[in-house]
Amino acid sequence: MIRDPQDIEARSMKIIRSELKVPLPDEVMPIVMRVIHATADFSFAESMYFSPNAVRIMRDMLSRGSTIITDTNMALAGINKTAAARLGAELLCEMADEDVARTARDKGVTRASVCAARALERRGNRLLVCGNAPTFLLEIVEALKRKAHDDIAVIGVPVGFVNVVESKEALRASGLTCIASMGRRGGSNVAAAIVNALMYGIGGVRE
Amino acid sequence: MIRDPQDIEARSMKIIRSELKVPLPDEVMPIVMRVIHATADFSFAESMYFSPNAVRIMRDMLSRGSTIITDTNMALAGINKTAAARLGAELLCEMADEDVARTARDKGVTRASVCAARALERRGNRLLVCGNAPTFLLEIVEALKRKAHDDIAVIGVPVGFVNVVESKEALRASGLTCIASMGRRGGSNVAAAIVNALMYGIGGVRE
Repeated sequence: MIRDPQDIEARSMKIIRSELKVPLPDEVMPIVMRVIHATADFSFAESMYFSPNAVRIMRDMLSRGSTIITDTNMALAGINKTAAARLGAELLCEMADEDVARTARDKGVTRASVCAARALERRGNRLLVCGNAPTFLLEIVEALKRKAHDDIAVIGVPVGFVNVVESKEALRASGLTCIASMGRRGGSNVAAAIVNALMYGIGGVRE
Repeated sequence: MIRDPQDIEARSMKIIRSELKVPLPDEVMPIVMRVIHATADFSFAESMYFSPNAVRIMRDMLSRGSTIITDTNMALAGINKTAAARLGAELLCEMADEDVARTARDKGVTRASVCAARALERRGNRLLVCGNAPTFLLEIVEALKRKAHDDIAVIGVPVGFVNVVESKEALRASGLTCIASMGRRGGSNVAAAIVNALMYGIGGVRE
């Protein structure tokens, strides 16, 4: 049995490359490969959407210092902390915050949409990462339709059967810098894999 | 748009039920449905393995107080804390532990296999949950082949391309009380979904 983590990783990527039947631009290849690595699901090679230059823009943002804000603590847990620290990126998820729960109750909205609204009120470069809650994504798309921000990029990969497909269609149509998994599939693991793949492609950042 | 979480959940489950083409025993149905809910991937309906009475045995164990030990902090993050507290279940992941890293370096093994060995040294009811690292699963199967424990049950759903299929085949062949996703697919999200589905089926525990 192969036990060396780097060897396992290299062999995994070799298998993925050999089985990947869809031609992909060089820029997006490492992102799609890491999503397949995290899911063993090759359908992502056909379902992922990248806005123009999304990978370059997001890496540039991450390399200049940013806050990575997720809609679940699970996505946050999957992000490589060493790589984030190396980039000086702050990681944040407010879903378990008492204030967020109270505001959501008072307004009769989801906690995820309150988290998204709070993320939009912050300053500086922000990578907004949605692996679970369509309302997080929809709050962002609705707000930024009215006022575009060049310091915000979005990873939109919620998973599920209700509101999910629509939320990603809205993101794609928004013109925002984004990476999304169209259709029903996605998840916190996919979200974390995309963030990690973006970070690993920046000079000096290792897994 | 439907915004009420309980309504979204109910509609999601209705869609899953209507699209599920594989007949499944009543006992395993809620577990498989929650995995599909977490992944939008119906292939799990055909790939999941349940040892005899696995669901009943695991729920019985969880209802008597147990430690749920995961191989990733990501799986841990996805487990419903309120439900676990209600059952008096302790949640544990030692993957980021300094001691574990040191022992792994000294022995030349993976951190996951050290975590598994430490889990086996503990006492009491233990649900061992593997969503990522095949070496975590293989350590358990190897150790328990020599000495069976009736206070241990295993969820084996690592994802990936190297050692993964083999580790789950070994688990299935071990005779241990287990739930597994055969083949390459699985993940921390699948692991957490299974634990949550088990807990939600115990009287008095809610989502």
